[in-house]
Amino acid sequence: MTDSFGSRLRAALDLRGPLCVGIDPHTALLDAWGLGQDPEGVREFGLRVVDAAAGRVGVVKPQVAFYERFGSRGFAALEDVLSAARGAGLLVIADAKRGDIGSTMTGYADAWLGEGSPLESDAVTVSPYLGPESLRETVTAAVRGGKGLFVLAATSNPEAVALQTARTVDVGATDGQTVAQRVARDVTWPNGSAAFEGALGPIGLVIGATVDRDELGLPDEVLTGTPILAPGFGAQGATPEDLTLRFGTLAPNVLANESRSILGGGPGRIADTIDERAARYREVLSA
Amino acid sequence: MTDSFGSRLRAALDLRGPLCVGIDPHTALLDAWGLGQDPEGVREFGLRVVDAAAGRVGVVKPQVAFYERFGSRGFAALEDVLSAARGAGLLVIADAKRGDIGSTMTGYADAWLGEGSPLESDAVTVSPYLGPESLRETVTAAVRGGKGLFVLAATSNPEAVALQTARTVDVGATDGQTVAQRVARDVTWPNGSAAFEGALGPIGLVIGATVDRDELGLPDEVLTGTPILAPGFGAQGATPEDLTLRFGTLAPNVLANESRSILGGGPGRIADTIDERAARYREVLSA
Repeated sequence: MTDSFGSRLRAALDLRGPLCVGIDPHTALLDAWGLGQDPEGVREFGLRVVDAAAGRVGVVKPQVAFYERFGSRGFAALEDVLSAARGAGLLVIADAKRGDIGSTMTGYADAWLGEGSPLESDAVTVSPYLGPESLRETVTAAVRGGKGLFVLAATSNPEAVALQTARTVDVGATDGQTVAQRVARDVTWPNGSAAFEGALGPIGLVIGATVDRDELGLPDEVLTGTPILAPGFGAQGATPEDLTLRFGTLAPNVLANESRSILGGGPGRIADTIDERAARYREVLSA
Repeated sequence: MTDSFGSRLRAALDLRGPLCVGIDPHTALLDAWGLGQDPEGVREFGLRVVDAAAGRVGVVKPQVAFYERFGSRGFAALEDVLSAARGAGLLVIADAKRGDIGSTMTGYADAWLGEGSPLESDAVTVSPYLGPESLRETVTAAVRGGKGLFVLAATSNPEAVALQTARTVDVGATDGQTVAQRVARDVTWPNGSAAFEGALGPIGLVIGATVDRDELGLPDEVLTGTPILAPGFGAQGATPEDLTLRFGTLAPNVLANESRSILGGGPGRIADTIDERAARYREVLSA
């Protein structure tokens, strides 16, 4: 039996700290790095980031869209990047934001979390628009395989606020929960089970560094034992200090994702930038 | 300048009627068809459905998850299926349910709607969990390229109700819209523009055949000129008669998707089943 995703993530966080490096080969960055707008360009980009990240941070997060852009050849490049990252001892969160109903989600779970799958990752991001309960089989599959999920709950982009703060209108005790709160309630149930007691659970949430957790109904007590993947750091405005200011006692369970702030300096600078940024997050946490 | 997606869809609906055939090579169907659980199996499955659908219906909808399951080799199979379908004169809706923020969504739009992209389709399904406004650039790109989108609004699965009927809490005139209604409002704006006046617009919505449109705030007048992709027909319970019963004056703009009900009979039966089902929908519409 392999370790659970939560325990591998805990070990990575304890050893290397909270910085998670995004692997986002978008058009402008490929140009800036002198790489082609083609499968070879995104492969090379990803491998260079992996090379710089290995031994410096615990977790990387490749953005699938920038590989999918090139179809099957882009996916072949992504497979090489995923495999290089895992081979280098990095935990890999595939940022795919997949979301569908039960039987179809099983296809996505097989793709990203299946043992021996060419796209095998340690965790994948998923989207709950078809209802958080529609992810139940995926949650179960992830737990069983020692894998993780990060379910979109409260993202950091301003366009998301209206939808994610909308209130459910069920009758009874759950009346008036926000969408984000309902997502948290309906997907993180394995984290409280005896198997993960006192440890980090396998089912994480995406909660932006800059969101108003009070408005969203996501206070600390709802998130105990839940890994948090937090966009919004770096170029998007949140600073390492926000890790403790915003997340308080939850800060040790937070992955602070930075992409552009690290990648924008070009390939020659990323190792140093990662060292610098990773050290700052560790300092904040140990202060 | 190519025709708009709306006008191509209108022509397909007028010529062949509302039946849209899902291409869903899930595990059980591959077994039932005697095909392998591998890239060759899903390729063969898709090509056989395309072969049977060509000339019988106007639109097919391949489910991306069942190809993604096999990574880059599954995507290569999907590319062959998409290309065969478009070559046979079918309109293709890639059921990918992608959803991300602006710059990342551009990657997905390039993948599925870009001219000459290996995954090029006529339209793609997208998910609005990051806020319908986050799809703005994708909407614009689709319109500009003569392509279509189907944005998830009110899906037919029971787990989706709480989230999709949740009410936004903005102050002012828009207070209390449902999530589904807000999605409809925020993404279908090109359909009302002068370019598409009196015709079908390029930006569609996914609205299940069995959902309560009154509860969701999606009355007919909100959906004028908007293509509707309706799951819920066939094995999921809605009948051809529901097309007019449920959608009323909107029925001529609805694609009724069936998958299992057509594919479950095995490869030898699908052409006849498609003929039968397609005829029933046409009869209902012309009654």
